[in-house]
Amino acid sequence: MPNFKIELAYDGAGFVGWQRQAGGVSIQGVLEDALHELDQRDVAVAGAGRTDAGVHALGQVAAFPLARALSADALVRALNAHLPAAIRVLSADEVPPDFHPRFGARAKTYRYRIWNGDVLSPFERGYAWHVPGALDVEAMAAAAGSLCGAHDFASFQASGASTSTTGRVVYASQVSRHAVDAGPAAHGRIDGAALALPTPGPHPLVVYDVRGGGFLRHMVRIIVGTLVEIGRGRRPAAWMHDVLASRDRRMAGPTAPPGGLFLVSVDYETETSERGT
Amino acid sequence: MPNFKIELAYDGAGFVGWQRQAGGVSIQGVLEDALHELDQRDVAVAGAGRTDAGVHALGQVAAFPLARALSADALVRALNAHLPAAIRVLSADEVPPDFHPRFGARAKTYRYRIWNGDVLSPFERGYAWHVPGALDVEAMAAAAGSLCGAHDFASFQASGASTSTTGRVVYASQVSRHAVDAGPAAHGRIDGAALALPTPGPHPLVVYDVRGGGFLRHMVRIIVGTLVEIGRGRRPAAWMHDVLASRDRRMAGPTAPPGGLFLVSVDYETETSERGT
Repeated sequence: MPNFKIELAYDGAGFVGWQRQAGGVSIQGVLEDALHELDQRDVAVAGAGRTDAGVHALGQVAAFPLARALSADALVRALNAHLPAAIRVLSADEVPPDFHPRFGARAKTYRYRIWNGDVLSPFERGYAWHVPGALDVEAMAAAAGSLCGAHDFASFQASGASTSTTGRVVYASQVSRHAVDAGPAAHGRIDGAALALPTPGPHPLVVYDVRGGGFLRHMVRIIVGTLVEIGRGRRPAAWMHDVLASRDRRMAGPTAPPGGLFLVSVDYETETSERGT
Repeated sequence: MPNFKIELAYDGAGFVGWQRQAGGVSIQGVLEDALHELDQRDVAVAGAGRTDAGVHALGQVAAFPLARALSADALVRALNAHLPAAIRVLSADEVPPDFHPRFGARAKTYRYRIWNGDVLSPFERGYAWHVPGALDVEAMAAAAGSLCGAHDFASFQASGASTSTTGRVVYASQVSRHAVDAGPAAHGRIDGAALALPTPGPHPLVVYDVRGGGFLRHMVRIIVGTLVEIGRGRRPAAWMHDVLASRDRRMAGPTAPPGGLFLVSVDYETETSERGT
């Protein structure tokens, strides 16, 4: 039975998260229901990352075996015809039977969006954390950079999480204030793909981009909560190092809300390596 | 009684449009209700543009008299505390009693967003028109440019509209494909403020930016419907000129759906001129 890998985007609002569970609509559950209709049998879908309720994805990866003979392109179309518009399959590829989206993942990239303006844009509701007031983005960037490398990230794991091994590798960890698009139509110009408000002064969007080999539960959101403490000037940039060294969740900042978080992409070995050669 | 001008943004989904009407929630109605609570009296709100159901605003302008003594900043905060998160007041200014947001407007800027990818991003639902397939953006841009200047736009007015004078001036009319943001974090980079999907090839967002002294009912959306006929290759770019010259709505393309349309900003004379000096 051929095994398929799909890349998908979803708006996490209104879902209980990736993982199927009693008492709520999950991304995994909706996908499995659509595949059941398509394949006329129960299909188990494995995902690369278990996004929490309200967390979004631009490039989640999932995999499943399919009995019905379908080309990759036909599978994309058929799945999208069965799925709600909040979940879209972007691409599909046939992969070897031993491909697993989580265990095979080499790296994941997340983005966290902070709206640092007095007024939250109506178009950012549920897609950014509203943090009004001054934010020292340079201090946040310095603190974020200190997380790069192999570390024990126990301080940044949800309390109660059961993972025993809390060592992870972070390849990139950066904070930036989004620059206003200085395009040709300067008057009333909004950022190309964006729905930015025409505001004077610095652009209100501050983003945290992180890429790593793997992430603990709530890790990105606890890092962001810690970064915002630093950005607000309540703690110096060097505090991040102390929090990391403490290996104690109680030392870190609060968990940032889920709506600002996006699973941007999941990386795998090249196709040749995937095929085990 | 002081007269206030406010700039506001709103997500038009779920509203029957700007104008108060029986049987639906309007932006104007919600604003007037909030002002009634604030001022303990009936307050009539005038708007710069009557956006239709589903049409959004990044910089709509409205005005009203206020009995209660409030600074402009306090008015912004008080109104936002009374309004739903889908409607946000961005700024307020006291203006002369004779200021009228519609009659005083010198120009308005609209943006129409087209999602020209095979799969509509979940984050573009209701914020762009999904037009899959090849779109000749150069032909669309040439056709759009031919609308600049003073013309009789009768072909681009909703059938049944009662405006007798259909002459309008367009100052800028341009189509562009949004360039992918080539920022420092190239891997998995999404556009700064955007929620773009990581797609190969040309960026799927095509935008129409138009600025003019005034607009007829559905004018921007009928222009966009006509531009898409040209972009799809069903008509040559020069067809736009023929449609314009015909002064006949039946010659133009279909009316593009409302969700792609944004009222970006409204321009007025400088404050000195507003004060009548």
